[in-house]
Amino acid sequence: MKILFHVFSILTLMTWLASSSNAQEHRHNLMPTPAEVRFQSEELAGKLTIRESFSTAVRGYNDRRLEAGIDRAMRRLEGRIGMELGRGLATDAETATLVIECREAGQGVPSLNEDESYSLEVSNGRATLKAATVIGALRGMETLLQLVESGRDGYYIPFVKIEDKPRFRWRGLLFDSSRHFQPLEVIKRNLDGMAAVKLNVFHWHLTDDQGFRIESKKYPKLTGLGSDGLFYTQDQAREIIAYAAERGIRVVPEFDLPGHATSWAVGYPELASAPGPYRIERQPGIFDPTLDPTREEVYQFLDAFFGEMAALFPDEYMHIGGDENEGRQWVRNPQIQAFMKERGIKNNHSLQAYFTTRLARILRNHKKKVMGWEEIMADDLSRDVVIHSWRGPESLAEAVKKGFSGVLSAGYYIDLSYPASNHYRVDPVAADKNLSPQEEARILGGEATMWGEYVGPETIDSRIWPRAAAIAERFWSPRSVDDVDDMYRRLAVVSVRLEEIGLTHEKNYRSLLRRMAGVKEIGPLETLVSVVEPVKQYNRGKQRSTTMLSPLTGFVDAARPDSEAARHFAALVAGFLADAPRFQTGREEMERTLVKWRDARPAIEAITGRSGLRDAEHLAAELFDLAQAALEALACLTESKTPDGPWAKVKTAILQQAAKPKPSAVEFAILPSVRQLVIAAIELPQLRGQSPLEWRKRVKTLAEGAQTQ
Amino acid sequence: MKILFHVFSILTLMTWLASSSNAQEHRHNLMPTPAEVRFQSEELAGKLTIRESFSTAVRGYNDRRLEAGIDRAMRRLEGRIGMELGRGLATDAETATLVIECREAGQGVPSLNEDESYSLEVSNGRATLKAATVIGALRGMETLLQLVESGRDGYYIPFVKIEDKPRFRWRGLLFDSSRHFQPLEVIKRNLDGMAAVKLNVFHWHLTDDQGFRIESKKYPKLTGLGSDGLFYTQDQAREIIAYAAERGIRVVPEFDLPGHATSWAVGYPELASAPGPYRIERQPGIFDPTLDPTREEVYQFLDAFFGEMAALFPDEYMHIGGDENEGRQWVRNPQIQAFMKERGIKNNHSLQAYFTTRLARILRNHKKKVMGWEEIMADDLSRDVVIHSWRGPESLAEAVKKGFSGVLSAGYYIDLSYPASNHYRVDPVAADKNLSPQEEARILGGEATMWGEYVGPETIDSRIWPRAAAIAERFWSPRSVDDVDDMYRRLAVVSVRLEEIGLTHEKNYRSLLRRMAGVKEIGPLETLVSVVEPVKQYNRGKQRSTTMLSPLTGFVDAARPDSEAARHFAALVAGFLADAPRFQTGREEMERTLVKWRDARPAIEAITGRSGLRDAEHLAAELFDLAQAALEALACLTESKTPDGPWAKVKTAILQQAAKPKPSAVEFAILPSVRQLVIAAIELPQLRGQSPLEWRKRVKTLAEGAQTQ
Repeated sequence: MKILFHVFSILTLMTWLASSSNAQEHRHNLMPTPAEVRFQSEELAGKLTIRESFSTAVRGYNDRRLEAGIDRAMRRLEGRIGMELGRGLATDAETATLVIECREAGQGVPSLNEDESYSLEVSNGRATLKAATVIGALRGMETLLQLVESGRDGYYIPFVKIEDKPRFRWRGLLFDSSRHFQPLEVIKRNLDGMAAVKLNVFHWHLTDDQGFRIESKKYPKLTGLGSDGLFYTQDQAREIIAYAAERGIRVVPEFDLPGHATSWAVGYPELASAPGPYRIERQPGIFDPTLDPTREEVYQFLDAFFGEMAALFPDEYMHIGGDENEGRQWVRNPQIQAFMKERGIKNNHSLQAYFTTRLARILRNHKKKVMGWEEIMADDLSRDVVIHSWRGPESLAEAVKKGFSGVLSAGYYIDLSYPASNHYRVDPVAADKNLSPQEEARILGGEATMWGEYVGPETIDSRIWPRAAAIAERFWSPRSVDDVDDMYRRLAVVSVRLEEIGLTHEKNYRSLLRRMAGVKEIGPLETLVSVVEPVKQYNRGKQRSTTMLSPLTGFVDAARPDSEAARHFAALVAGFLADAPRFQTGREEMERTLVKWRDARPAIEAITGRSGLRDAEHLAAELFDLAQAALEALACLTESKTPDGPWAKVKTAILQQAAKPKPSAVEFAILPSVRQLVIAAIELPQLRGQSPLEWRKRVKTLAEGAQTQ
Repeated sequence: MKILFHVFSILTLMTWLASSSNAQEHRHNLMPTPAEVRFQSEELAGKLTIRESFSTAVRGYNDRRLEAGIDRAMRRLEGRIGMELGRGLATDAETATLVIECREAGQGVPSLNEDESYSLEVSNGRATLKAATVIGALRGMETLLQLVESGRDGYYIPFVKIEDKPRFRWRGLLFDSSRHFQPLEVIKRNLDGMAAVKLNVFHWHLTDDQGFRIESKKYPKLTGLGSDGLFYTQDQAREIIAYAAERGIRVVPEFDLPGHATSWAVGYPELASAPGPYRIERQPGIFDPTLDPTREEVYQFLDAFFGEMAALFPDEYMHIGGDENEGRQWVRNPQIQAFMKERGIKNNHSLQAYFTTRLARILRNHKKKVMGWEEIMADDLSRDVVIHSWRGPESLAEAVKKGFSGVLSAGYYIDLSYPASNHYRVDPVAADKNLSPQEEARILGGEATMWGEYVGPETIDSRIWPRAAAIAERFWSPRSVDDVDDMYRRLAVVSVRLEEIGLTHEKNYRSLLRRMAGVKEIGPLETLVSVVEPVKQYNRGKQRSTTMLSPLTGFVDAARPDSEAARHFAALVAGFLADAPRFQTGREEMERTLVKWRDARPAIEAITGRSGLRDAEHLAAELFDLAQAALEALACLTESKTPDGPWAKVKTAILQQAAKPKPSAVEFAILPSVRQLVIAAIELPQLRGQSPLEWRKRVKTLAEGAQTQ
């Protein structure tokens, strides 16, 4: 980590400590971690105490966006610390607590090239935030809010020096409004969440087979017939764009073509490659309706449509989709086949390239640059196209080697219910691809994808947050910031703070449990839901019939990805097994935990006769068996007992049963840990009398094996 | 209760049971309880099972409002039962599960005279809902949703016959948007809550000293200078009016005059009775700024303003406030004094009557009827004025005896943090006022008042719900429905169901606790908050400095009125003491509860160094002492020990300390019960050897005394 300031007396240097995420010196709660951050050493650790007199002044450039940003930050601070602070700006910068020095406005509509850097210094009695642009200042204010700590003497900001700027310029969240429509307030609170963790691209997936969500005044049947009446008016889209710009966030709309096009064809079947009629698709999946790339009328339609959208969406990029076109309608259409033959177009891929090239030309005429999924890559495509990778680092590397720019989403699919750690470990720049510095520079960043098959307004926050904050750190912070444990420690803090802007990820799952139970006392259901997760990948659709019209209020909807209880238990089990052959570390807490899990069953059954608890009852019965197995395994290990013959068989069957797909579409996140304990109880007795080293080796092997069984 | 149908075979009669709230036959979860409801007897109790094939048909009149209402009801049902139901209406009424027969549209803008009655019959395989108007049908659908129960075999509606209509025509909720502005979505979810419990008047308090919240195009400085930019545009007001009308709810706007007028005078100081300048008031209370009733320009202004508002708000009534004008500016203004002398106006009350009479004339010219607080009552006022009583049954009786109509709010001030039972026991028609039937008929109903001094968007729901549902029952149901215990039983169910429309009363207080603690694990804080309530009346302002700009995120904001834990504990104590001199009933549960309360203290202190927990720490220390005292009292009583001398003194001091006003502005709802136990432990030993009857008499006296000490 670099020294912050070039001229620095040795004495001063001694009092400031470079802090990486690994540093023990000062455990901060910042996420994303700034590029450079130094706290004072423990013995000096100064504090800027927050009093009611806290005031903010702006030196240099100022405008309405900056003032509004300051006001929002102060209101959030007030709410958190429960203390009324003054309104408006202080006129005297000399006496203000926080001084913001901004050089210029920055872009009203933020672009890829916006300067988001800032520096922040908190020292004797004052905080100074400097930034080239207002957007940089907004980023710095989020850091300031994250710095606030509390102690016996009140709230304070520790003395600190920060120099910060993003590693990647493109830090996005794909938000799918097509599969399930999301009301404006849902989008707004998520934009606030994005701003809080310094994400800067709201990728708005507006059209797909399951719904066309943006008003076209030229083609009113797009929403008139393709949206069930659930769409954004152009005024509402402008409201979102302005709301995002206020927070330094770009809005990149996606109009997915030529596949994923059912909702276009409902109102305008003549666009498709087969006659229709079409109906809004209610299922998840990949469907046939595809635009006909051979007819001039289609391009005339697209020209007029994209002209309208180009005027509505100010961002320089427009996303044209391009993914998962299987070309089935093309193959079956003789006229299209004749067209291909005539022009020497060899296959569907080339036909799509023909379509993409023409569409790109239309967009260029409307002064827009093109972004699209990697299927659109074609040799004669202009190199200002941004390739969006859902397939992975392989094809992203291919894209940048060909001269395209690229944005990575593979590895950041938050809709698949993987833990934050999985995403956190993925880097937009794969280490093994031998990219030149120029090629690497063309990797603009990444986007977390919130595909909308299984999320409604009540649940979407819990699928995005807090995990997207860890991805935001990956996109913003230096590559060296990679300590998973420390990420989770900070993520827990960030998660609570994200609630203060109205996000519902920490509270709505309990509402769902209450609705299901019909009563307020849901303690045992909370216990149960804490140890499960929604199934990974797209398995939900396989295990549980769900259309786009199904209610999203089941037990699986209350379950949340990345179970904290399971992570904590896994750590306990690891510590316990590492303590072989003594087996004492963490034993009591494990027992307490397991007893609680086991006893959830009768408590859930006692909420008698609730058919809404059917899923929960089945799961509670399985959890009972798992907890019982773990408790018995624990007893065997601590008491150096060898389990009797049938035990292994019975418990292994329980583990296998618990691992099976369930109609509830959840899975036991604690299963690998329970499995580890059971296998340890079965296998470790053979080691009796051997050296602790042998024990530890065997335990390590067991731990690795248990994850995958 | 009347027999439902005139011709009824004896056999049929035997199978249907009249059910009042007292009836043990079938404990329903309806609130408000219908005028007449009969379930089948236990042994026959038929059920209409809800399957995926559930369908709805409309016979007779149909329109967009009805269809939208059906769709909303079906989506809520889906969400609750987690089962996808079909969309749209069934075409064949013969095979539909639910058949709705409506005679006519009813009023597009609902009025005081709307027919809200309906009948509902659920029997073999189908439900039939009949109503004169669409609004009646909407009321019936809410009942239908409340009828849904669940059991091992799934969700069902029990066979039932209901004939229902409201007791009062005016069933309102006063919603104060002035003291704290409330965003549109907060209002919408509360309108949904109102509809769910059949309230039908949204009384929108739009102006007061602390803010002018409705756009006037004629007088833009009203909001331009009087609102901090927080106001409803006329389009937004229309959106709310339409949203309410969709649900059969009237919107009656209130423009509070001539007092409570600071926010008018900020932009237009020439309206006031003293020169100004004026600033938006930030404190709660009663303030001097008052319109000048002597100047013609003021009436010209009001004529133009109310003309604009009359066009905006379609309801036939307009509320002109009129309360709490202390006339201080009038007394000090020589020109006003001269005016009074000249006209022979003897006092401020008569001057206000002059103002009211002129304002009423202006409103009549704009085709509006007047409603106002009881201060506006004056002899030469037209009898179509509705007197709104905040003072009580006395003045309401006076009003109707004079020929006015009246609406009662005294007794329904939900902002004062009293338990639902207090409000539930108040009847709009006081029993002791000797009203003639005609006079009684002029009592139109009542309104719960949600004054906005201490509520923000995050907390307002928890101040309205669920208590407003109990008041809604008072306004709708027969007077004979008055069982408090049964009300609370049903209220707990209703409270959970109100969450399904987005109300946040059950979930936001935990968010506040997390924000305060900065961590997710808030179990001990939940325990603590469950035994306290916000202080009653307007004592919050006395105990804790709070302006209209203060954050509403303190412990008192997380605390909720009408502590369930305290109510439950009080019942346990009552049962325990009634079991004198054995003292066994409920003992174990009491001990468990008290130990939990006591042990919250170390757990809260363990969340180290959080200054946001200062209030909680003090309270936890007091709770520790209270719980300890109760535990010791319990031990004395069960073990027939006489507490030693100093014990009584020490514990009495603890009780007195706990009863003192605190800066946290909460109070211990469990205090009367703890006091009862302690006093019992002190006094009952004297009774040893006496008859159980003596014991019981003494316990009863104790119980009564403990409430008031």
